[in-house]
Amino acid sequence: MTEPTGDILETFENPYPGRDYVIETVCPEFTSMCPKTGQPDFGTLTISYIADATCYELKSLKLYLQQFRNHGAFYEAVTNRILDDLVAATLPRWMAIVGEFTPRGGISTTVTAEYDEPVSAGDPTASE
Amino acid sequence: MTEPTGDILETFENPYPGRDYVIETVCPEFTSMCPKTGQPDFGTLTISYIADATCYELKSLKLYLQQFRNHGAFYEAVTNRILDDLVAATLPRWMAIVGEFTPRGGISTTVTAEYDEPVSAGDPTASE
Amino acid sequence: MTEPTGDILETFENPYPGRDYVIETVCPEFTSMCPKTGQPDFGTLTISYIADATCYELKSLKLYLQQFRNHGAFYEAVTNRILDDLVAATLPRWMAIVGEFTPRGGISTTVTAEYDEPVSAGDPTASE
Amino acid sequence: MTEPTGDILETFENPYPGRDYVIETVCPEFTSMCPKTGQPDFGTLTISYIADATCYELKSLKLYLQQFRNHGAFYEAVTNRILDDLVAATLPRWMAIVGEFTPRGGISTTVTAEYDEPVSAGDPTASE
Amino acid sequence: MTEPTGDILETFENPYPGRDYVIETVCPEFTSMCPKTGQPDFGTLTISYIADATCYELKSLKLYLQQFRNHGAFYEAVTNRILDDLVAATLPRWMAIVGEFTPRGGISTTVTAEYDEPVSAGDPTASE
Amino acid sequence: MTEPTGDILETFENPYPGRDYVIETVCPEFTSMCPKTGQPDFGTLTISYIADATCYELKSLKLYLQQFRNHGAFYEAVTNRILDDLVAATLPRWMAIVGEFTPRGGISTTVTAEYDEPVSAGDPTASE
Amino acid sequence: MTEPTGDILETFENPYPGRDYVIETVCPEFTSMCPKTGQPDFGTLTISYIADATCYELKSLKLYLQQFRNHGAFYEAVTNRILDDLVAATLPRWMAIVGEFTPRGGISTTVTAEYDEPVSAGDPTASE
Amino acid sequence: MTEPTGDILETFENPYPGRDYVIETVCPEFTSMCPKTGQPDFGTLTISYIADATCYELKSLKLYLQQFRNHGAFYEAVTNRILDDLVAATLPRWMAIVGEFTPRGGISTTVTAEYDEPVSAGDPTASE
Amino acid sequence: MTEPTGDILETFENPYPGRDYVIETVCPEFTSMCPKTGQPDFGTLTISYIADATCYELKSLKLYLQQFRNHGAFYEAVTNRILDDLVAATLPRWMAIVGEFTPRGGISTTVTAEYDEPVSAGDPTASE
Amino acid sequence: MTEPTGDILETFENPYPGRDYVIETVCPEFTSMCPKTGQPDFGTLTISYIADATCYELKSLKLYLQQFRNHGAFYEAVTNRILDDLVAATLPRWMAIVGEFTPRGGISTTVTAEYDEPVSAGDPTASE
Repeated sequence: MTEPTGDILETFENPYPGRDYVIETVCPEFTSMCPKTGQPDFGTLTISYIADATCYELKSLKLYLQQFRNHGAFYEAVTNRILDDLVAATLPRWMAIVGEFTPRGGISTTVTAEYDEPVSAGDPTASE
Repeated sequence: MTEPTGDILETFENPYPGRDYVIETVCPEFTSMCPKTGQPDFGTLTISYIADATCYELKSLKLYLQQFRNHGAFYEAVTNRILDDLVAATLPRWMAIVGEFTPRGGISTTVTAEYDEPVSAGDPTASE
Repeated sequence: MTEPTGDILETFENPYPGRDYVIETVCPEFTSMCPKTGQPDFGTLTISYIADATCYELKSLKLYLQQFRNHGAFYEAVTNRILDDLVAATLPRWMAIVGEFTPRGGISTTVTAEYDEPVSAGDPTASE
Repeated sequence: MTEPTGDILETFENPYPGRDYVIETVCPEFTSMCPKTGQPDFGTLTISYIADATCYELKSLKLYLQQFRNHGAFYEAVTNRILDDLVAATLPRWMAIVGEFTPRGGISTTVTAEYDEPVSAGDPTASE
Repeated sequence: MTEPTGDILETFENPYPGRDYVIETVCPEFTSMCPKTGQPDFGTLTISYIADATCYELKSLKLYLQQFRNHGAFYEAVTNRILDDLVAATLPRWMAIVGEFTPRGGISTTVTAEYDEPVSAGDPTASE
Repeated sequence: MTEPTGDILETFENPYPGRDYVIETVCPEFTSMCPKTGQPDFGTLTISYIADATCYELKSLKLYLQQFRNHGAFYEAVTNRILDDLVAATLPRWMAIVGEFTPRGGISTTVTAEYDEPVSAGDPTASE
Repeated sequence: MTEPTGDILETFENPYPGRDYVIETVCPEFTSMCPKTGQPDFGTLTISYIADATCYELKSLKLYLQQFRNHGAFYEAVTNRILDDLVAATLPRWMAIVGEFTPRGGISTTVTAEYDEPVSAGDPTASE
Repeated sequence: MTEPTGDILETFENPYPGRDYVIETVCPEFTSMCPKTGQPDFGTLTISYIADATCYELKSLKLYLQQFRNHGAFYEAVTNRILDDLVAATLPRWMAIVGEFTPRGGISTTVTAEYDEPVSAGDPTASE
Repeated sequence: MTEPTGDILETFENPYPGRDYVIETVCPEFTSMCPKTGQPDFGTLTISYIADATCYELKSLKLYLQQFRNHGAFYEAVTNRILDDLVAATLPRWMAIVGEFTPRGGISTTVTAEYDEPVSAGDPTASE
Repeated sequence: MTEPTGDILETFENPYPGRDYVIETVCPEFTSMCPKTGQPDFGTLTISYIADATCYELKSLKLYLQQFRNHGAFYEAVTNRILDDLVAATLPRWMAIVGEFTPRGGISTTVTAEYDEPVSAGDPTASE
């Protein structure tokens, strides 16, 4: 099976680039394969971002995430990697991703990663 | 069908303009049409604001929102546009809108936009 | 029917005036009349305060609120007015009131108002 | 606007006609218009049935229900009418529909109607 | 204050008299006065019925129930009395009412009463 | 401390003796003492009954139950005993009591006891 | 991809064949492919059964269900087919399966199928 | 480690043997070892019974269940075995046990077993 | 009845005094008597603290709180007084208590009080 | 029984060391023994951390925690000790642990401890 790629992500022009507003997308049907055991993993991804010039298109996001269906991926790596792919595709002002994975062996894991625009003076999270 | 317009919004005089207090209105019956698929979308709008001189009247808000029933609108654009219309009609000290839309293709979206009075020294959110 | 009055409120001496502690009172059985439609409105009032010298007595609070049962009152006005009456009766260091009203026409409203002691150097919310 | 019609419903062959099994479909995005007030109504329809030779196809069910979007309909009538249309299209062994409508004036309504195959000796509900 | 009366109830023709279907109406904003203490009582009434020739109209039901707002009534009596009034107005095949009242002195009460059409051979509850 | 007694229970005339209707009383503030450990026990009592000629008065029920506050009582015995006392005081057509007690040592207990009128031909539970 | 097969199911000897007891297995991580759209479907399968001589082994059940991960299957067919495979593998006295699938286009579907041992005089559901 | 034994169970005289009443005991802290993997299992046991002459004492029940802490036991066998031990110790008129075990490999299991007094004419479940 | 006293509280040495960590104790079974009505009050106390040299022992805390069972105490006074007693017994770096009392006359009350070590430079709440 | 040891913990290389992201692990199946009563304790541990060079491996974490199964440990000590062991094994930038233990004698306890990298200029919690 081919490696997942962010090239599949499509974007559209942010309709309100003059305002820092938050778009949150909840994807409860994420599934990938554990590289160690070969067993499927399941999780809910919550992606939040403040778009700059472009937003991701939801159908392409769905197809992008479906690439992981038969792809081996550890929780920590896949959450960060999806963040990197989405940042590369949309160049947002800010983005965060929370990956909540279902229990294995009585233990469940959540990975939370965040991206801040490197040199933005108007970073909306700076004043918190 | 005609374009929705904020002209339909009626206001009344803020009964306590001397105090910065918050009015929150929850509208769980918002529906519009997806411009791409022609299918209806459904969502809950939560509008919060600190009125200055005027408050919006609830029945006119309901009629204003019903204009979108057969109107094509993307999530990101319609949430920001309703914020703009309500700000224009009430000139509030502060206003925020959260649009939570129901799942499509296993993915659900929430858009959150906020307006701050441009030059208000007494901005209630500045000290947070 | 006579106009509601805060004169009905009784107070008792704050047993711990040396400490800024919070008393929260939840009143889920508030009801008044809509002045526009003549229909009854229903809501839950949550009153929180830091007493200075006096606390309000709960039974008198109940009787005070029952005065609104057949009294016409808009959401925004009645929430602020009850805050004013309770502040006048107890002269607290800080007080807040949240009025959550049940849906009308598919729309529900919550009004939140707050009072800070005007010149208190020891205002407990100043350092937040 | 044209009258809704069950002709839009498509069916497919029941894959397991030899077994009495139950298919339940929940449609939380039903909306129609109140013929009296001209205001939109909202509700959740739950349709359960035991298919005989045919099952309804889900996409055509969605399009069938969307016909009511701008159609005037009272709760009691529309729930029974949808039951009639679905029975006519699928000729099931048993079917039930529950329509739960959102509150109006502080009152909410649920309508539950049921269809039993007229002369079936093997009616699965007869022995309850 | 005048005594509540069922004369205020309006009915409309049952649109599907040929089918025994259930209409459930939930009224969470019922309030009356305790005849003993003079204090207001609050409760949720849930009315279910199988109409024969007529259904009650919802707005008139609301006005009928509002008559109890300043009327003294014990839980047991008022629940049965409302059942009697609604039966008299609609002559249903079957009707039930559940009155759930809020706690007093740490104790809450629910009263459930049911009416069956006296001589109906087709009584839908007989076969349970 | 004196032994609890059902003599404290007051009754009033059933306002609708011609109908078998159910009165349910939930008492979440029941407390007694464990005879073995001397520690307090806590529970919620739910009493349901179909009155014959008399109903118990709620304030006297509260005072009756408060007699157990400093009284030693095992879960099984106290639940059955309260049922006996209430049956003796009201002579109901049917009565049931559910006592749900809070966890001790990681184990929680619920006791459910029921009383049926001995020779009643019209016993409402007989046809179930 | 190869067709899923029940041959993968392993069984073990029922440790208490002399008693009709129920084993319920909840599998919230079922996923298959929609044959029509090629999109993944997700659901929770709840399997209940009364074993006769053999029980299914849980790890083999998991592997059996994973065969559907990249297999096209309609809701109605796949639920019945899994029932057939599990009945064939374990020859139970009684078995039922509930397949609850996540929403598509705002509509969600649950399929419930049941198997009764054909000629068992001791059928545990016969007396209900 | 020694084999668990029901000999540890202590009983006391049923205080109300003349009435068929139900005692339910919920034990959310049951743990044993999986004989196959050597890993600990966790579950909630809910035991319900109608006592005849004797009831089990709760502290001895807790100690009895703790014997399984380091004991290998499959779900199906251990649930039935505990039922047998409790029946042997208390000789009840009726007893049922529900063992709900936490998920393993994304699958969770519940085992429900029931005991009926063999020749009792007054079996409380016979009339259901 | 004797006056409750903090002398009953036992402490043990903080096992990790080098770290500011929080211990939270939830006591849902607090009960005292209303001095005005003589009726029992019920509440849940949540105590949180950062121990310095000593921690309170849980069994002695339970016995300390049981002293209030038959003791008259107003909500505001008893919550602050328990805070004072626990501070005196453990000399913590920080302590807070939340007393949530059950509804009376449809109104419920929560009292929240906090203690900060007077001259501690390392006060963990100072930097918030 | 041997003393639990952190030596059993295995780690793997942090796949994204350049980003401060949070990994949260929830372990609802923690159990140890009370050193005072010899009775088992049960709790849920929630561990959150920002890894530096290494992450802990989940299966080794499970085995590490299982060492406490038959080990005597007080709530306050065991929570802090596990934090120390995990910090020693992974040398994180930040770590926190919340231990929520089930009720004993009607009282439940939660212990929350946190570790900050001693001299890190880039401490992610410093800017809060």
